[in-house]
Amino acid sequence: MLFKPKENLNEKKIIDHMRCLGIDMISEAGSGHPGIVLDAAPILYSLYGKHMKINPDDDKWINRDRFVLSAGHGSALLYSALYMAGYHLELEDLKQFRKLSSITPGHPEYGVTPGVDMSTGPLGQGFASAVGMAIAEEYLRNYYHQKNLDIIDYRTYVLCGDGDLMEGISYEAASLAGTLKLNRLIVLYDCNHVCLDGSTDQVFTENIFQRFTALNWNVFLVNDGEDIASIDQAIEQAKSSVDKPNIIVVQTTIGKYSKNQGTNKVHGTPLDKEDISSIKDKLGVRDIPFTVSNDVIVNFQEMIHTRCDEVYQKDQKMREKLDDEVKKELEKLEKLDFSLDHLDFDYEIPESQAEAPRVTSGKILSSLAKNNPFLLGGSADLSSSTKAYLEGLGDFSSSNRLGRNIFFGVREHAMGAILNGMALSGLHPFASTFLTFSDYLKPAIRMSALMNLGVTYIFTHDSLSIGEDGPTHQPVEQLVSLRAIPNLTVLRPSDANEIIGSYKYIMSNQTGPTALILSRNTVPIKESTSIHDVARGGYIVRKERKNLSAIIIASGEEVDIALEAASRLEEKGYDIRVISMPSIELWHKQDEKYREELLPLGVKTFVIEASSSYSWYEFVYNDKYLINMNTFGASASKKDLYQTFGFDIDSVVTKIENLLK
Amino acid sequence: MLFKPKENLNEKKIIDHMRCLGIDMISEAGSGHPGIVLDAAPILYSLYGKHMKINPDDDKWINRDRFVLSAGHGSALLYSALYMAGYHLELEDLKQFRKLSSITPGHPEYGVTPGVDMSTGPLGQGFASAVGMAIAEEYLRNYYHQKNLDIIDYRTYVLCGDGDLMEGISYEAASLAGTLKLNRLIVLYDCNHVCLDGSTDQVFTENIFQRFTALNWNVFLVNDGEDIASIDQAIEQAKSSVDKPNIIVVQTTIGKYSKNQGTNKVHGTPLDKEDISSIKDKLGVRDIPFTVSNDVIVNFQEMIHTRCDEVYQKDQKMREKLDDEVKKELEKLEKLDFSLDHLDFDYEIPESQAEAPRVTSGKILSSLAKNNPFLLGGSADLSSSTKAYLEGLGDFSSSNRLGRNIFFGVREHAMGAILNGMALSGLHPFASTFLTFSDYLKPAIRMSALMNLGVTYIFTHDSLSIGEDGPTHQPVEQLVSLRAIPNLTVLRPSDANEIIGSYKYIMSNQTGPTALILSRNTVPIKESTSIHDVARGGYIVRKERKNLSAIIIASGEEVDIALEAASRLEEKGYDIRVISMPSIELWHKQDEKYREELLPLGVKTFVIEASSSYSWYEFVYNDKYLINMNTFGASASKKDLYQTFGFDIDSVVTKIENLLK
Repeated sequence: MLFKPKENLNEKKIIDHMRCLGIDMISEAGSGHPGIVLDAAPILYSLYGKHMKINPDDDKWINRDRFVLSAGHGSALLYSALYMAGYHLELEDLKQFRKLSSITPGHPEYGVTPGVDMSTGPLGQGFASAVGMAIAEEYLRNYYHQKNLDIIDYRTYVLCGDGDLMEGISYEAASLAGTLKLNRLIVLYDCNHVCLDGSTDQVFTENIFQRFTALNWNVFLVNDGEDIASIDQAIEQAKSSVDKPNIIVVQTTIGKYSKNQGTNKVHGTPLDKEDISSIKDKLGVRDIPFTVSNDVIVNFQEMIHTRCDEVYQKDQKMREKLDDEVKKELEKLEKLDFSLDHLDFDYEIPESQAEAPRVTSGKILSSLAKNNPFLLGGSADLSSSTKAYLEGLGDFSSSNRLGRNIFFGVREHAMGAILNGMALSGLHPFASTFLTFSDYLKPAIRMSALMNLGVTYIFTHDSLSIGEDGPTHQPVEQLVSLRAIPNLTVLRPSDANEIIGSYKYIMSNQTGPTALILSRNTVPIKESTSIHDVARGGYIVRKERKNLSAIIIASGEEVDIALEAASRLEEKGYDIRVISMPSIELWHKQDEKYREELLPLGVKTFVIEASSSYSWYEFVYNDKYLINMNTFGASASKKDLYQTFGFDIDSVVTKIENLLK
Repeated sequence: MLFKPKENLNEKKIIDHMRCLGIDMISEAGSGHPGIVLDAAPILYSLYGKHMKINPDDDKWINRDRFVLSAGHGSALLYSALYMAGYHLELEDLKQFRKLSSITPGHPEYGVTPGVDMSTGPLGQGFASAVGMAIAEEYLRNYYHQKNLDIIDYRTYVLCGDGDLMEGISYEAASLAGTLKLNRLIVLYDCNHVCLDGSTDQVFTENIFQRFTALNWNVFLVNDGEDIASIDQAIEQAKSSVDKPNIIVVQTTIGKYSKNQGTNKVHGTPLDKEDISSIKDKLGVRDIPFTVSNDVIVNFQEMIHTRCDEVYQKDQKMREKLDDEVKKELEKLEKLDFSLDHLDFDYEIPESQAEAPRVTSGKILSSLAKNNPFLLGGSADLSSSTKAYLEGLGDFSSSNRLGRNIFFGVREHAMGAILNGMALSGLHPFASTFLTFSDYLKPAIRMSALMNLGVTYIFTHDSLSIGEDGPTHQPVEQLVSLRAIPNLTVLRPSDANEIIGSYKYIMSNQTGPTALILSRNTVPIKESTSIHDVARGGYIVRKERKNLSAIIIASGEEVDIALEAASRLEEKGYDIRVISMPSIELWHKQDEKYREELLPLGVKTFVIEASSSYSWYEFVYNDKYLINMNTFGASASKKDLYQTFGFDIDSVVTKIENLLK
């Protein structure tokens, strides 16, 4: 049944104050996006005031409804709604909008503003991550149901704009959401027909109803974005959906009440003083910046508390009665503590003393997942190749909400964003594809890093050593692209020992995302590689015998080339140290003493990695000491490619010898 | 009217030989994708044999129909069709499939195999680039019509699979194609319901008919992929489309005739010998590898020549009669010569001696475009901000095929791929968005680079200096990501002079893609910056007075910081040289003498660039000499951010001074 506001409550007054606070913030900041603030305020009012299960005093409440402002440029509206709803923001915070160290940054940032469930701004990311939140809710609800616990039961709401729906990532995520029947996902689409460059008529003419129906969604229409009753009714209908995700198309007028309403002039520039005065006049709000009368706030907050407090209290009481183990589990979920509880896993080095890194990784991941219920994930239609599949743990689907393997389809970008949504819900998700195709999800990886989320990306087929598939499939620039992302840790282990070390590091130190880079080829498992030294980023895998002639640094499959080259060079009278460097980021974190011990000043240092030189200049005197890959590869056997591009042992030895002579 | 094959022609025989050649290639190579070879052969037979306007002896014929194998893993099928159609491939070439230096690489590569119109492999790219080809055809056809010349009149065909349609890029491109009413685009969708990891039921349940109808496409169905008459009929219907792009859903069985047909087992692994024998037995093809009887080939090629030769001859005769100017123009289009004919442009340095690089760029681009009809492009809904808009040259739309500004919508990824399709049609396209969002189109930029296409990417809002929009909008790692792409030239000019130099370089030396990186902020136009030295990558913008103390390298907006720091340091007794380095790629191309003259060994060298250090290690002794940005930014004013992150003049001077003391 629809929640009825108090009879004396003037709903429009609340909405109009929300609007005016938002445009005041933008005006004070001198930049921002007033268009959406004016047109979507009724939507935020309805969600926070009448539908979402929240407690503004406890914005981490695990069983709260989630809200994602996919149209992140509408941050001023969100902050004004959060302030009015009673989240821990002061009026002063609104005045600091877009200023240094404020809790009201230009686009919403997770962890900065109380009540913000996700960082948004790059279009489409919020929409797709919300699908991940809905997947997480399904998993967690059913996980606890199975234990006869009714702890998790919430919805995920999204506000998106035209821009979000034009982005391919939103289509990818929507298609998967339809297949997975995520009925607790409710998207409100602020359909104002205007984007930054003008009317959407020239770029976006699709039939949204038909499109989302095709993707197995419910589609609801609200003809007039000012009609609160219709918005409410549509949300109520969406809430009763049984087997489909929901989109509510709310027809709005961008910059409603501004002299430029309905045009792109109000999209991204502050309104002028006169326009603001005129809007406030029309709305009956006093023309003083940041005016908000107490009764408006009291009314709004009362609506929320009357509706939500009981269920919150019930939730808290139930939690007190839970087993300590479950309590601890929930605390970790709430805190987004991504470290796994059970770090032991079964893995036996094969008798052959050789294995493909992707295979080793698959085994470890499967074993880890058996004891850690919140480790789950999947692949963008490449699990058969990447081996990132949890054996025996079932496939997540509309009929199996406890399946641990998610089939993302050939949708790399949505996969990355969905991982972010799952991590924001406390899970520790993983995803896999080929390293070259990490490009497809780069914007989502960046969001993982920005939000410090413990997600694990598994990228296999990591160099030209994949051979015949050719240059479209052979990564060159991808490693440095990933290494350059702040907060992302890139690990490129050389064999099973280092893969074990990588997983130990990843699963116990997860304060940000990790990219695990793996070869597809069988490699020897070496006696000199170390499990625990992976965490140091780089370490010695071959000591010099007596008088150090030179050092070779390598990573991944190329460590074997380095070791072989060192042996050959020894025969020629050179005494070589080999350093395996699975992670430059972790290397950078070591103290100077360790780093100088391993790489003493003045010793000629070479690097072998079949990837862009940009990663490695810092370690060498000049580029002559780099054995890297700076052109596209080719379609041929690994052997032929190594010869062509200088990674065969003869070429490597000759190159190093010439520089040592 | 439908083309009728000779009565005695056994169509199935041609198709079956095409199939068998394909699986023999995969078997001989030991890797490849037999599933699509077996299921889609009837489609390629129909297209090449009965519909496409081609001349296998002249695969660059400008007026030919284009074919894009978006499902690039089906290369064996394409090569076998091209061979049989009489393109310049020998049977020996098919035997060299996936081998070093062969003309039959693992995935189709433009410029390597006669008849291959585009490199494909990464899913979705082909589909989206075909939309660019269709845009180019519309533009060129109407461009010549306007001159009363009937030179251009062709269709673009695509074969795509489930994977292509799951990718967001294909949705983005399809939505735009519908809006633009690109009726000469005909997509054949090999709908086999199987992807690499299994049945599409678990990942791809959308209603394709409804989806494409929603996007304003015609949708045709062929129930049985073996039914050639139905395929033909559907293609004929699609050809008569007046105002909609077309997709023909061809229901096929993956790996048709294999013992594993209909399953993912036949997707990406060679068939075993026994299976191949059994298939050949069923098809009545002799069980000897690479068997193809002469009459089959003769029949197939006769079909093509009977149908196409007349129109080809007519085309050639007409071309002989053309003006020399038009002839030259067409030759350039055919050769994909991207250099512009008219390199002069109007641009006046403003009186204020200061201008925002994005504004300068917009003016030059507009002026260049006025005299160069094949320079056109647009933005992903940010032209108002990037200023990449051609003033007075109209907007491309379904009703204005001569408009030069393309509104891509918020569809960065498709924008990049569409540029590739336009460039493959001989145009010189450009596209723009914010530098951070270059991530969204990275996979398409890589394709531009792989194919050496002369496309220009304009990325503005290039560092934390954008201020308030915050870390989601502030690039950090993007510059090195772009610089690491082989064949891509990145230019980051510091002011109007260098922007002029950049355009001169780009528009006259275009043998590969370029990324032009521009600040949004107003910067002074310096007396010491040079137009022609941009082509050298780096040059001196401030000479030392007498005794060189140190060198500062900078790019873009940071050149002004470097110059200011040099002046301040001079007051403190240090004699500083400043080098502006707009392009590391072009710097690398200079001879050693020039580079050593500018950066003499043993002189302390600093770098200032508000971007990842990975770009710059090669120029400095160690990272203490780098003034870069290796963390995410924040939402605040430019001034506050510069202070916080060490780019204000005091911090810079102090840092350098401490290292010079």
